[in-house]
Amino acid sequence: MVADQLSLTFSALADPTRRAILARLTSGATSVTELAEPHDMSLPAISKHLRVLEHCGLITRSRAGQVRPCQLKAEPMKDAVDWLEHYRRHWEESLDRLGDYLKELQTNAAHPRAKRHVRTKKTSR
Amino acid sequence: MVADQLSLTFSALADPTRRAILARLTSGATSVTELAEPHDMSLPAISKHLRVLEHCGLITRSRAGQVRPCQLKAEPMKDAVDWLEHYRRHWEESLDRLGDYLKELQTNAAHPRAKRHVRTKKTSR
Repeated sequence: MVADQLSLTFSALADPTRRAILARLTSGATSVTELAEPHDMSLPAISKHLRVLEHCGLITRSRAGQVRPCQLKAEPMKDAVDWLEHYRRHWEESLDRLGDYLKELQTNAAHPRAKRHVRTKKTSR
Repeated sequence: MVADQLSLTFSALADPTRRAILARLTSGATSVTELAEPHDMSLPAISKHLRVLEHCGLITRSRAGQVRPCQLKAEPMKDAVDWLEHYRRHWEESLDRLGDYLKELQTNAAHPRAKRHVRTKKTSR
């Protein structure tokens, strides 16, 4: 089964080493040796991560010379953000509810008589 | 190795069936049978996807009753967007450059004499 681009992008981002590599590349093109430095990993292990990033289009590698520096290509992240933004309303509402709940808890702690007004976090039916 | 929350979130989103399930849940709590309907999949296969989504905190399942409807919990997506937003400048610059390049191509197609001014997409050196 050929994975769709969005699945490839999310899958590539689902690893802390690959995310650290992308963060490092925001400073500009970097050689594999330099990319491997901060990680306790062999060069072949780093190269494997780079192949995943290259396959999903998040980096390119120069074809010329022996060093073949890597370069960030952030474009696939745009579709990932566009997809996630459809859910913003949901997480914002959820965090607002949590904020209200914590505020009520604080109020009730200051005025214990109002304790019965604390709503439970889970809505009962 | 215990995966970090961001890796769990990206990993859960790296599957079109799981993304379709999350999209369906934006309309409200839904039973597993209803969630399975649009997919050519067995209930155990759908249940496996739901366990992944539940494990990373993108859904919750009611503990009461036999139906145990699923509910969207979008909060983990916030951290995913926050992480991706650090790269916005990079993909926007990249798309701007592509736009400029296409504009130049159009101009040169309309005025062939200017053809020599078309920059190649890849920067040499």
